[in-house]
Amino acid sequence: MSAPSKITAPLRQMGERAKEAAAALAQIPGDIRRKALLAMADALDAETDRLVAVNREDVEAARGSLTTALVDRLTLTAGRLAGMTEGLRAIAEQPDPVGQVVEEWTRPNGLRIQRVRRPIGVISVIYEARPNVTADVAGLCIMSGNAVILRGSSAALRTNVCVAGILVQAGTKAGLPKYAIQLVEETSRESAMELMQLKGLVDLLIPRGGPALIASIEQNATVPYIIDGDGNCHVYVDRSANPQTAAAIVVDAKTSKPSVCNAAETLLVHADLAESWLPGVLDALKGHGVEIRGDEIVQRVWPDAVPATQQDWGTEYLDLILAVRVVDSIEGAISHVNRWGTSNAEAIVTDDPAAAEMFTKQVDSGTVFVNASTRFSDGGQFGYGAEIGISTQKLHARGPMGLRELTSSGYVVWGTGQVRS
Amino acid sequence: MSAPSKITAPLRQMGERAKEAAAALAQIPGDIRRKALLAMADALDAETDRLVAVNREDVEAARGSLTTALVDRLTLTAGRLAGMTEGLRAIAEQPDPVGQVVEEWTRPNGLRIQRVRRPIGVISVIYEARPNVTADVAGLCIMSGNAVILRGSSAALRTNVCVAGILVQAGTKAGLPKYAIQLVEETSRESAMELMQLKGLVDLLIPRGGPALIASIEQNATVPYIIDGDGNCHVYVDRSANPQTAAAIVVDAKTSKPSVCNAAETLLVHADLAESWLPGVLDALKGHGVEIRGDEIVQRVWPDAVPATQQDWGTEYLDLILAVRVVDSIEGAISHVNRWGTSNAEAIVTDDPAAAEMFTKQVDSGTVFVNASTRFSDGGQFGYGAEIGISTQKLHARGPMGLRELTSSGYVVWGTGQVRS
Repeated sequence: MSAPSKITAPLRQMGERAKEAAAALAQIPGDIRRKALLAMADALDAETDRLVAVNREDVEAARGSLTTALVDRLTLTAGRLAGMTEGLRAIAEQPDPVGQVVEEWTRPNGLRIQRVRRPIGVISVIYEARPNVTADVAGLCIMSGNAVILRGSSAALRTNVCVAGILVQAGTKAGLPKYAIQLVEETSRESAMELMQLKGLVDLLIPRGGPALIASIEQNATVPYIIDGDGNCHVYVDRSANPQTAAAIVVDAKTSKPSVCNAAETLLVHADLAESWLPGVLDALKGHGVEIRGDEIVQRVWPDAVPATQQDWGTEYLDLILAVRVVDSIEGAISHVNRWGTSNAEAIVTDDPAAAEMFTKQVDSGTVFVNASTRFSDGGQFGYGAEIGISTQKLHARGPMGLRELTSSGYVVWGTGQVRS
Repeated sequence: MSAPSKITAPLRQMGERAKEAAAALAQIPGDIRRKALLAMADALDAETDRLVAVNREDVEAARGSLTTALVDRLTLTAGRLAGMTEGLRAIAEQPDPVGQVVEEWTRPNGLRIQRVRRPIGVISVIYEARPNVTADVAGLCIMSGNAVILRGSSAALRTNVCVAGILVQAGTKAGLPKYAIQLVEETSRESAMELMQLKGLVDLLIPRGGPALIASIEQNATVPYIIDGDGNCHVYVDRSANPQTAAAIVVDAKTSKPSVCNAAETLLVHADLAESWLPGVLDALKGHGVEIRGDEIVQRVWPDAVPATQQDWGTEYLDLILAVRVVDSIEGAISHVNRWGTSNAEAIVTDDPAAAEMFTKQVDSGTVFVNASTRFSDGGQFGYGAEIGISTQKLHARGPMGLRELTSSGYVVWGTGQVRS
């Protein structure tokens, strides 16, 4: 572990400004926060042409240094921008979590205890070159009453500056505090390190990045954080699975968007289906350009398979590659998932209720799907409008995180003079 | 920061055993966990004489090295033991959180999304010389389906070994996995350091100790933790307060048990009451042996007050000392609390609903009481049977933590073949 970095004046100042903005934001009524989000969406829509043009500069500069998948993530089209503003409007439609009474009960001595949601304060997100994250994160933080410090990647800097500038202008005009949304323009590793050590100023840091960033946070962060980790997602096809349903889910989970964390990386198949069902689905996957890395049984029943090594079970390919393993039983599948999974999303395809119950109870993951694709592990798909990330840890939140996860539940207790002595 | 310690075989082995026990425990039905707690309570009751005798050895050995307050915390009487077993029985009466569906909704595409509580896994608690914590923590962890590694202080070691031995024997006989409850008998600083670095084995560490332990956790822990921090608790007496209610709450909050974290340490009084109400309550506190450290106005209206320095606002005395400050307004009180408080518990005494609303909305603390003593910030008083600690952080849990806070809420999603492509 390296020595703590010196926090430069500008970043610390951003933290202090955010803290002040957060105190003000926590008192701003939900309808003003809501209107600010709608104004932000309208403002982005109105600037579609400029945003797409600015993004093209980022994309041109990135070609050559980034992989095709990353360039794709970075690219902002008019259609994708429309998706972003749709997301902001969907967030604005969510129930306001601030002040929500989660639970309430009265004690025998008359004390009325309420658990009440409040904003967390200052939230910072470190993310990769996906421009939509800038709007999603800003929208979720503002709607939940939190100030936000955005720290995107250098590859998307021109786009992020443009998007954030529009959001700040529209938001401030709609009544948000001046520093409710801030963007860190200095995208060095040092700035990330400084951010994770702004203790007392940043109340929650969410890293949305690769293993190096996560490891750095775990080593160096002094601020509270929630890990949005890898997605080594599994689909297990049970003996009892409907063959068509299983094939459709496997193909979708692998191929519908291979570059994202909720794409499947390993297929586990019950031994009873190895000869009957498996070759057909592997043909179909091959037709989608997927490379299959299989265990010995897979290689036997489908000779095009590349031999899988142990490393394949632990790899998040984010690409058109699928590891395939045949298991003797559902217990074998559960134990494989719990050994190799990253607690993001896993699916079972089965028509046997007992198998579904066992899998959902024993698999340790953020989201366990029964007869649905892992690709639904997504805040938008859950109905949250967008997501601030997918938690792969157990505390505070698991799985896709929306507005509710950006609040803290404290107690308010109403008495009439109760004392203990 | 020091280099990571080497984890010795025995402690790592305890972690591995706990992890296996946790997997088994998570599948054990609630009624077995419940019966185990009742058996544990009965077994402790049956051994009252032996436990009190063993504890006397700890107490004798500690005299001289510990303060009176700490010796008092360490002491186990038959009455206190009865309180411990009552706590275990009260925990057993709580609703089983494991498998509880917290929320459920259906998406337009037919996906049924459930948020379901599951045990966290392996929980470890590092605590001071309070024997009741051993039973409280074991009971809460087992009832919530978690394996527990207890690490008490050396001063209570004889008592803890005896209590834990009885709990393990009774629990195992009632059907718990063998290593569901373990006690670290090596109570060096090194063992605490090793525990906080058992990454992958300990899923949640709760430190219940002083500032040095907390700082060490924040610097060195690689496992997830929840801080049970200091309790620099405030009572604010508003201009509109009922004078008798206010006096009773202030006296109770300071004197009913000064050595605990929910005792009041600072009294804030609205300026309108400085001459009329304040001298009387300070007389009453003096009658209870309380030393008053006051600002200039306090010294003027009540000459016995010792001058308060800035350091007093930030001190958790845990003793019969009270800092007293006169504020011009409720805003002044809120800003003092948010500047100096430790987010444990604060109270306002007021008959003005607008003041109550403002204080509860703007004070940043685990529990905000209206017209009740801060001494109710306690798992037992909240109806949780006992508490595993009082969270002074914002993520996962704030305030007193019971069974619910020892679970993680993941998603289970039920489909009928849904895909995204």
